[in-house]
Amino acid sequence: MPEHVPPAAQAEGAFGWLDARRAERERAGLVRTLRPRQATSSLLDLASNDYLGLARHPEVTAAAAAAAEHWGAGSTGSRLVTGTTALHGELETELAAFCGFEAALVFSSGYAANLAAVTALSSRESLIVSDADNHASLIDGCRLSRAHTLVAPHADPAAVRKLLDQAPGRYASALAVTDALFSVDGDAAPLPDLAAACREHGAGLLIDDAHGLGVLGARGRGAAHTAGLAGAPDVVATVTLSKSLGSQGGAVLGPARVIEHLVNAARTFIFDTGLNPAATGAALAALRLLRREPERAERVRAVAGALYRGLSDAGLAAVRPDAAVVSVRAPSPAQALAWAARCRAAGLVVGCFRPPSVPDGISRLRLTARADLTDEQVATAVAAIAATA
Amino acid sequence: MPEHVPPAAQAEGAFGWLDARRAERERAGLVRTLRPRQATSSLLDLASNDYLGLARHPEVTAAAAAAAEHWGAGSTGSRLVTGTTALHGELETELAAFCGFEAALVFSSGYAANLAAVTALSSRESLIVSDADNHASLIDGCRLSRAHTLVAPHADPAAVRKLLDQAPGRYASALAVTDALFSVDGDAAPLPDLAAACREHGAGLLIDDAHGLGVLGARGRGAAHTAGLAGAPDVVATVTLSKSLGSQGGAVLGPARVIEHLVNAARTFIFDTGLNPAATGAALAALRLLRREPERAERVRAVAGALYRGLSDAGLAAVRPDAAVVSVRAPSPAQALAWAARCRAAGLVVGCFRPPSVPDGISRLRLTARADLTDEQVATAVAAIAATA
Repeated sequence: MPEHVPPAAQAEGAFGWLDARRAERERAGLVRTLRPRQATSSLLDLASNDYLGLARHPEVTAAAAAAAEHWGAGSTGSRLVTGTTALHGELETELAAFCGFEAALVFSSGYAANLAAVTALSSRESLIVSDADNHASLIDGCRLSRAHTLVAPHADPAAVRKLLDQAPGRYASALAVTDALFSVDGDAAPLPDLAAACREHGAGLLIDDAHGLGVLGARGRGAAHTAGLAGAPDVVATVTLSKSLGSQGGAVLGPARVIEHLVNAARTFIFDTGLNPAATGAALAALRLLRREPERAERVRAVAGALYRGLSDAGLAAVRPDAAVVSVRAPSPAQALAWAARCRAAGLVVGCFRPPSVPDGISRLRLTARADLTDEQVATAVAAIAATA
Repeated sequence: MPEHVPPAAQAEGAFGWLDARRAERERAGLVRTLRPRQATSSLLDLASNDYLGLARHPEVTAAAAAAAEHWGAGSTGSRLVTGTTALHGELETELAAFCGFEAALVFSSGYAANLAAVTALSSRESLIVSDADNHASLIDGCRLSRAHTLVAPHADPAAVRKLLDQAPGRYASALAVTDALFSVDGDAAPLPDLAAACREHGAGLLIDDAHGLGVLGARGRGAAHTAGLAGAPDVVATVTLSKSLGSQGGAVLGPARVIEHLVNAARTFIFDTGLNPAATGAALAALRLLRREPERAERVRAVAGALYRGLSDAGLAAVRPDAAVVSVRAPSPAQALAWAARCRAAGLVVGCFRPPSVPDGISRLRLTARADLTDEQVATAVAAIAATA
């Protein structure tokens, strides 16, 4: 180090402002801490996004292990250099076919897939209309895109139509962006009406189907497919491999011209390391399992419905689920946290969503249905949540 | 679908503007295509970032397989919900200790780690000074941060000092952001001088050590450690698990107050699924292997030096390597591409970096040294690259 470096006392100051942020969080009761879990637990899991119960399925974990042994622990580079294996190609082909799209491109996360899709499908000359409750990764995509972004009221196709009215003549292109199922309350977007609004204006529609894949539709092909929008030339969907497919990663699904554009233009594709082989192989095995056992999709919806009915019958403020997520409102962040802690003491792991992770500032317990929960487990869960409310 | 949906002909138009982009790329000779690879190849790999040759090491792949079997194929949720396993905690503890920092936080990619570090360590009231040649993920972090970002000329501490002069009184905090080793030419940042400039101004220093971990320093502890900056209260480093450690993922290393802040504030931490167990276990195994066999770090630097000397002696415009990357300039994008193709025909896989992946617009072959290359393989590679120039 050069001689003129000031003493460490001065160095303390550089990140000293973080202490004020910490104090603010403490005052508001919003401190988050990590709670490392073990591989097995006596607690009943109603918090993970492992909707189909495939993350621990022996076929899926065996495929992960086999892929690591055969292809290596990492993909070793950007997808454009050495990071694309034949396994990635296989997953992309089967995923596109299953979801009903022309082509697919796999990313290291759903977050990266969303950043890629939003930024590559817009430019400084574009208009983006984004739902107010969209996932953080879509919002960050809008911020990165440098497009003119207008936030539409939640799940309001008339408002989207009105905002898109500004597009013709003023913008080179327009894109509406929406979660298919919103992460916090689990409610569905009005996809057919949104698609109609977009088509009237020559706008593209980007659907984040993270919570729909494996859950919605007769065979779990997702919300876009169920709405009859899969494969349309003006529709792009993103999915995750980390929820129903029990693995890690994300994908963009769309027309071949869109996928070809992403390969050439999406920064989170070009400048990221390819998805590791274990995750790629696991997602492929899970997808094949879902094709073979489509009843898993039906079962997870039935479990969500049973959870909702049980909680409602117990007088709790549960939101009717459109897919696998059942949200129950709590009076305050502190009360949500205490409720979740009481659930844990009663043998249940539940999600606890508080500001700033909830767009409307309302804290809730967030319960996720899983296809491998038994009716008895659902009854036990409902009883425990009601007893601790 | 509602009856008022216009016909598909109109839908074609939504992404029609992508065709013009494609035509531009074709005219410029800048079309990128994916080339899926097989698990084994008769070609000599000088393109991957598997610097220590650990991605295929039996201990590392066995650890990946064992982690998938024991913990599951995916982490099943956000690190804040169900996505933190004890394995994540183990990796974070050992990685922080190895690199000399107080604490560490693991992300699903180095890209996500960089977005997190830049955005969480700045605010609308902050000044960021960012090196002109920084990696795309740091640049995207600056864009997302909403801080006032000034781009400093490449590797120029005097310029950074001058830009930081604006900070006191005008900004609530200041942060300088730099790659430790720049990805394209493999040249090192002047870290001690940058740290001095930051400390004079009470600014934090964020170092992306993606290409330093496992390569620089006596035991491969990275560029920040080698510069005597590891563990300083005003220094934060990011690393990838996908290069020297042969896996996937990234991490932020820094003071405990910074890591605690990231857990609470970093969107790519809170709203992403945790790194999958196979990648987590593989990175941990690779780290332990590096601790046991520190000579791997020395070997990769020796191989890079030998590549550079051989290419320079053959009259090629190679850049003297500061770590594992050896860059060789080519006259044009088309000639770089043709040269890389001739290398492949001669049995070598080399990287080919062209606009827009190169900040200065100069196309080059990018060669990466690996610790497991023999002297004979290096000689073969040099001869093939020279013969095809």
